[in-house]
Amino acid sequence: MISDILFHPRSIAVVGASDAYFNGVTQVFLHTLQQFKYKGEIYPVNPKFETVAGLKCYPSIRAIPGDVDFVISIVPAAATPGLLDDCIAKGVKTLHLYTAGYAETDEKERGELQDRLTARARDSGVRILGPNCMGLYIPAEGITYSPAFPMESGDVSFISQSGSYSLIVIRGAGARGVRFNKVVSYGNASDIDECDLLEYLASDAETRIIGAYIEGTRDGRRLHRILKQASSKKPVIVVKKGGTQAGSRGAISHTGALAGDDKIWDSILKQTGAIRVEDAEEMIDLMTTFSFFTRPRSRRVVVLGNGGGPSVRAADDCERAELVLPEAPQKLRQEMKKYSSVAGSMLRNPFDIGGYHFDWAPVIDLLARWEDADMMIWQIAPDIEPFDKDIFHKFCLDQRAKWLKDFKKVSKPAAVCVHASESDVAYEVLKITRTLCVELGIAFYPSVYRAAKAIDRLIGYYERIG
Amino acid sequence: MISDILFHPRSIAVVGASDAYFNGVTQVFLHTLQQFKYKGEIYPVNPKFETVAGLKCYPSIRAIPGDVDFVISIVPAAATPGLLDDCIAKGVKTLHLYTAGYAETDEKERGELQDRLTARARDSGVRILGPNCMGLYIPAEGITYSPAFPMESGDVSFISQSGSYSLIVIRGAGARGVRFNKVVSYGNASDIDECDLLEYLASDAETRIIGAYIEGTRDGRRLHRILKQASSKKPVIVVKKGGTQAGSRGAISHTGALAGDDKIWDSILKQTGAIRVEDAEEMIDLMTTFSFFTRPRSRRVVVLGNGGGPSVRAADDCERAELVLPEAPQKLRQEMKKYSSVAGSMLRNPFDIGGYHFDWAPVIDLLARWEDADMMIWQIAPDIEPFDKDIFHKFCLDQRAKWLKDFKKVSKPAAVCVHASESDVAYEVLKITRTLCVELGIAFYPSVYRAAKAIDRLIGYYERIG
Repeated sequence: MISDILFHPRSIAVVGASDAYFNGVTQVFLHTLQQFKYKGEIYPVNPKFETVAGLKCYPSIRAIPGDVDFVISIVPAAATPGLLDDCIAKGVKTLHLYTAGYAETDEKERGELQDRLTARARDSGVRILGPNCMGLYIPAEGITYSPAFPMESGDVSFISQSGSYSLIVIRGAGARGVRFNKVVSYGNASDIDECDLLEYLASDAETRIIGAYIEGTRDGRRLHRILKQASSKKPVIVVKKGGTQAGSRGAISHTGALAGDDKIWDSILKQTGAIRVEDAEEMIDLMTTFSFFTRPRSRRVVVLGNGGGPSVRAADDCERAELVLPEAPQKLRQEMKKYSSVAGSMLRNPFDIGGYHFDWAPVIDLLARWEDADMMIWQIAPDIEPFDKDIFHKFCLDQRAKWLKDFKKVSKPAAVCVHASESDVAYEVLKITRTLCVELGIAFYPSVYRAAKAIDRLIGYYERIG
Repeated sequence: MISDILFHPRSIAVVGASDAYFNGVTQVFLHTLQQFKYKGEIYPVNPKFETVAGLKCYPSIRAIPGDVDFVISIVPAAATPGLLDDCIAKGVKTLHLYTAGYAETDEKERGELQDRLTARARDSGVRILGPNCMGLYIPAEGITYSPAFPMESGDVSFISQSGSYSLIVIRGAGARGVRFNKVVSYGNASDIDECDLLEYLASDAETRIIGAYIEGTRDGRRLHRILKQASSKKPVIVVKKGGTQAGSRGAISHTGALAGDDKIWDSILKQTGAIRVEDAEEMIDLMTTFSFFTRPRSRRVVVLGNGGGPSVRAADDCERAELVLPEAPQKLRQEMKKYSSVAGSMLRNPFDIGGYHFDWAPVIDLLARWEDADMMIWQIAPDIEPFDKDIFHKFCLDQRAKWLKDFKKVSKPAAVCVHASESDVAYEVLKITRTLCVELGIAFYPSVYRAAKAIDRLIGYYERIG
């Protein structure tokens, strides 16, 4: 069992911190604590400096006057046995080994070093996080490994065997308005592993949604039991990587993980009720969905937006993801004709409406009241306007902000999708619309297909748990 | 058979052109001809104006002094029977009906209007393009319907039943460096249809690669024959939409197309040798691949880049797309250790290397000479760097430009992938890197999976044609 102290350390030492010009690792692990206003004590440790980042620097862990709960090591692997001795002597609770160069290399003695360290730590009561990982991002505590992460706390927790994967997911989900409670990048998992972390998060009252990126496990049976427990309490979204031959070779040389047969993983994950997703994008989509999209009463959806091709595509995309577009009855079509010209519109669901002088407010209102549909998707394909400048000016600023407020008032679950494809002007529209949606708490997606697939997974989850 | 005059009109009249403030349609169809320096005569036609856009404006087609090869109609459907009479009298070759409001609506008399117009045009020899479409983009002629399209000509031709779809594809592929020869947005296809256009492009010497977005066809047998012919001469990449129930309803109300059973379409397309792709993104990927990636000698690929998770993912993504990553032999790994530290690197293929002070030049050179791999993929995942500013400054500007030049010299087919996920800073990196790749003529993709899948399709195409 993991103790609460892992996530709530009262003091942090950064061993190997340096005031040398552009020491990236010190910036990542020490400056960020200052930037995020970590409230506990911060102790730089390095015999070469008197001060680091304006803080008194200590020659060793033992030389620190107060208690040290958490130690971040950014020194080379070879120096870590001595450091562990110091941590044991000092009564340190957790030793986070950022540095790589252990079991994930193809060098035997480095694997043995990891084993020795882990065994010694287990005997002594010091827990090891890593090695070869980014450690903790806990915004409520002011702990982070990237200054680019949101400073506000939320109710999504995420564990990741890959540090870079966690950076991708937190940046991406963060841009959609998802906020995190506890994030742990755990690397080689020599001591603290995915099972320990998931077990803790399953009963963590602050965590409503769990995400996990896993490359391998040492104890499939325990993982199965814990995933099953956790999934019965809250959604657990899992990315499992390293399933192909080259991917598995990659996983071994990345975190020393034995990736295992992908089919076995798939059936295990299904049995536990965990939601297996393909990759970072789908992880971000599901975090967004569980954060901002409530369970719809049925799979019936109304799709509004503009562009003929994009509307046909949106309809296909929804039905491919097992959502259903009921056909608009004659009465609704007649009412829609009040707002939309017959020429150049599609009024049967999908609805292709709009144009330069179009007012979305009454249409959103009308479609929100249509009883055959239990959720709404608004699809925006900025690339379809011939003019670059006008896309930006006419659709994005004042007016869209107003209509999104109308959209937010819709009492059914509702999502906004800006399909940016790849043009720069479309990305601008995506960015502005996404920001507006985040401010309003609207579920936002970069394509209808990704929205529909995530909504399908959310519905499936609720159907399973009953 | 379509005559060459469709694509090379010596004069164009725009009926309904207006000098009213912000007349978007006039901007799309008349101002663009001036912006793209169309060399033929341009005749605005509108009884309400003396001049439009600085050009003498005529009250009718008949009043124009010279010959008129091509007429763009932006007047409402009800006015088009009279316009067609004028076109016949004047000996116009092609009448492009931009305006919608015909068979795609659910109003019977509008469908009948389209039928009458088409029959009368057929009798007279005037060809109708549309109705309900954007018409022609032929950069070499100075004809376009968006000022945002590239002005340079290329060897990719594209036909699209949806105008908005064509805008998405041309913008997206254009941003990757793909250049177009002839693009036709053909809408309801009442006269000129996908068969006519594909037949022309199959034997068009200026067209090396064909793309098509199709919602439905009137003559499946003819389409089958023509696709087979065309595919035997050059790659034909097809998106077929409207396959689901709601999608098919969408297609009918979009272009009046009968979408048909998706499985039948799938088997027909397979039989013809056409390359069926899922959507706009894959269309853009394949246009990019056939434009900038030559046929590799085998499916064996070396993947280099940085980030542990992204490298594992890249390996999985390549093998999911049936590419093969040969394992790096001990000798190569030893050589790599000269350039890359053991700690924090993956040296077995995938190669996870790099960092702040890393020099890619010797590594690119070493891996390019590795004989077990017949192509190279360089994966860049900008989101994995903790710092926003540094991603931008350190990785993107001077240095990457230099390394991409080294990468361009690699004698094997080679691709660059920037996986932007969704953060704004990552999109910046994507944009800069993409621009550099376009300048150098390097195949660029927004993810390894999309690159691998497109390369798999390219290899499959060449295997089929032998």
